Amino acid sequence: RIDGARLWRRIMDMAEIGATPGGGSCRVALTEEDAEGRALLCRWCEGLGLRITKDRMGNIFARRPGTDGDRDPVAFGSHLDTQPHGGRFDGVFGVLAGLEVIETLSDQDVQTRAPLELCVWSNEEGARFAPPMLASGVFAGSYELDFALSRTDNDGVTLDQALEQIGARGERVCGDHRLAAFIEPHIEQGPILEREGLKVGVVTGVQGSRWFRVSFTGQDAHTGATPMPGRRDALVGAARFVVAMQELALAQAPHAVATIGHIDNQPNSHNTIPGHVTVTVDMRHPDAEVLDAMEAELRSAAETLAAGENLEHGIERIANTPPVHFAEPCVQALDAAAHACGYAYRRLISGAGHDACHIARVAPTAMIFVPCAGGLSHNEAESAEQEDLTAGANVLLQAIIRLANS
Amino acid sequence: RIDGARLWRRIMDMAEIGATPGGGSCRVALTEEDAEGRALLCRWCEGLGLRITKDRMGNIFARRPGTDGDRDPVAFGSHLDTQPHGGRFDGVFGVLAGLEVIETLSDQDVQTRAPLELCVWSNEEGARFAPPMLASGVFAGSYELDFALSRTDNDGVTLDQALEQIGARGERVCGDHRLAAFIEPHIEQGPILEREGLKVGVVTGVQGSRWFRVSFTGQDAHTGATPMPGRRDALVGAARFVVAMQELALAQAPHAVATIGHIDNQPNSHNTIPGHVTVTVDMRHPDAEVLDAMEAELRSAAETLAAGENLEHGIERIANTPPVHFAEPCVQALDAAAHACGYAYRRLISGAGHDACHIARVAPTAMIFVPCAGGLSHNEAESAEQEDLTAGANVLLQAIIRLANS
Ligand SMILES: NC(=O)NCCC(=O)O
Ligand SMILES: NC(=O)NCCC(=O)O
Repeated sequence: RIDGARLWRRIMDMAEIGATPGGGSCRVALTEEDAEGRALLCRWCEGLGLRITKDRMGNIFARRPGTDGDRDPVAFGSHLDTQPHGGRFDGVFGVLAGLEVIETLSDQDVQTRAPLELCVWSNEEGARFAPPMLASGVFAGSYELDFALSRTDNDGVTLDQALEQIGARGERVCGDHRLAAFIEPHIEQGPILEREGLKVGVVTGVQGSRWFRVSFTGQDAHTGATPMPGRRDALVGAARFVVAMQELALAQAPHAVATIGHIDNQPNSHNTIPGHVTVTVDMRHPDAEVLDAMEAELRSAAETLAAGENLEHGIERIANTPPVHFAEPCVQALDAAAHACGYAYRRLISGAGHDACHIARVAPTAMIFVPCAGGLSHNEAESAEQEDLTAGANVLLQAIIRLANS
Repeated sequence: RIDGARLWRRIMDMAEIGATPGGGSCRVALTEEDAEGRALLCRWCEGLGLRITKDRMGNIFARRPGTDGDRDPVAFGSHLDTQPHGGRFDGVFGVLAGLEVIETLSDQDVQTRAPLELCVWSNEEGARFAPPMLASGVFAGSYELDFALSRTDNDGVTLDQALEQIGARGERVCGDHRLAAFIEPHIEQGPILEREGLKVGVVTGVQGSRWFRVSFTGQDAHTGATPMPGRRDALVGAARFVVAMQELALAQAPHAVATIGHIDNQPNSHNTIPGHVTVTVDMRHPDAEVLDAMEAELRSAAETLAAGENLEHGIERIANTPPVHFAEPCVQALDAAAHACGYAYRRLISGAGHDACHIARVAPTAMIFVPCAGGLSHNEAESAEQEDLTAGANVLLQAIIRLANS
């Protein structure tokens, strides 16, 4: 059994880096705060005698040797970057549960046959550099390294420059080693476990998601002197599109979601009709065919609404993560571990995307969920119980022992 | 007659300060660029031997003595600040037409009985500090000095700090002297003069405008893991409100306009449901009673739409400029001047707000319009003909001579 109080303390220590007034964390990918969080984790890993390496995307690998040196490592972990108004648990729990499992094994002098490897994936959130889960995606071959390094943030800084600025870039070639398995513990970020009073979820897959950058171009003009007919107001076009995306998702109830999280309005002056607006659409569904239909509707809505306001428009698909089905042997190992621990649990699929989605392409993968209050996430008020986090880490411990000794 | 080529050259010289790639100017109020523009104007005024003073709001007064020293000055001018993506003529024309009139009189050794005063009003655009026309408003007693100095920009800098930073603050008490008359030349910023093939417009008044800051508050949450029902998406509420404002203005056709030029979306992350959105509404109409009705509709639309998305909302009125009717004697002086010059002209009312709106409260006031291409303004592509600008300045010259000698 792991030490739940120690795990909790480490989560709270990490949360102090980039702590926000609302009780959350702001450690956006590859910022100074992210660098501090990564450094703290590395100090903890060194304290446990783990060997740390980094790859070209800044992914961190902390390895504990196994008794059978030829075997591929059994891996686990998650990410340390957060949303701008992020919570204390999203990602952090998975990384520190992994560390806790290693420390528990060391405390008890337990060796495993396969090596163990704690993974910290860079830029999972995608809040600064889209697409999200970018660095695990490069590791798994979903994205080319050059594509990933050339992504830019809103200020035009490339991911490569950001890696350089905070000294996060490693030497290893991305994906240069195989993983025997990958398990990612995470808070659920949805309402199911809490509602059903369960301690643990065994995640069998992840719904698909697609992101689009949609722009509307009209003409800057004076708000007072320009009559309504003849205006080319890009914000009115974008606003109609935001409403249409909500309606599109509702029409595919209950599983579809569609959201516009980001908007850039130009010139954003009180008394100038906006001439150029860009929004980002995030749409998700467990079924790729439904996503195809939703994408088609998005394209025709953008076209129709732009034409209605006499605007030009552009659509760029900036992320496309197909629905993922995790490996049955890993899922069963988690079932067995949850059962052995005596926790009330169920299988479920994830609404949020995770690094595990990409790693599933190159290694048998599954995830462990624990409940979070109200299913709330990407919010400073995100919250989870020490008892539930402890349960999730215990399931990880049991599963890792099984996977690494089988 | 004024020297149209000299006037044009000065407008082009001014446009080099803060020149934008799109051929416009960016000299947002009380920035370094605005400071440079003000300094250039002061050098020109000193070259003509004018006495320059500044007041607490940074308004600049450049005076040419009259033969009757006891008389209040006949004043004219406009502003030098621009929109972020502003044009080369908005405001600048009025200031430099005034300078050109003074230089023409000096060239010809013409004295006037009343002194002449060129006025440059600070922060006319309101792009950085709302409300617009703030410094002429303090001069005229429409706003308290303390209120004006404490207005903040998007970064929380107060207008007082901005005045300090660029050294624009003067010693004079705002409104410490009377003006015998005030004439503001300006580009029309609307389509009427161009459409009717006229060189000059005599402006008899300005429609009323009201600005509102409207906020919607929901809850940050995960875009993928949060089901559509139960979301509290502040951007969806704001988007419905943007559409409602367009419909509200169309329902009061043909004279009403309503625009949302500015939006602040929080946390503005691709995969976080926006929890807090603030927009600024600019609504205008020539009739105060219609504005009352529009304001009532705005308030009820915000309430209804916020409730529909389960949001909280707030409404703050940040500017209220009633419809203005200029002084008939000034209007007639302009009619007479345009007639004497032999220009095709008409009377019209202004869709845009101007410093003249406030000055009209404390001095007989009117405005001269000249056409601009396509009626386009608050746009880098704003454009006007040298011939029309020359005509406008000639009308100013004739009117000033009449007013200052009568
Ligand atoms: N788990 C999580 O919040 N991932 C961020 C990527 C996404 O699903 O939007
Ligand atoms: N003339 C002009 O552009 N004034 C700015 C204030 C307004 O929005 O009317």
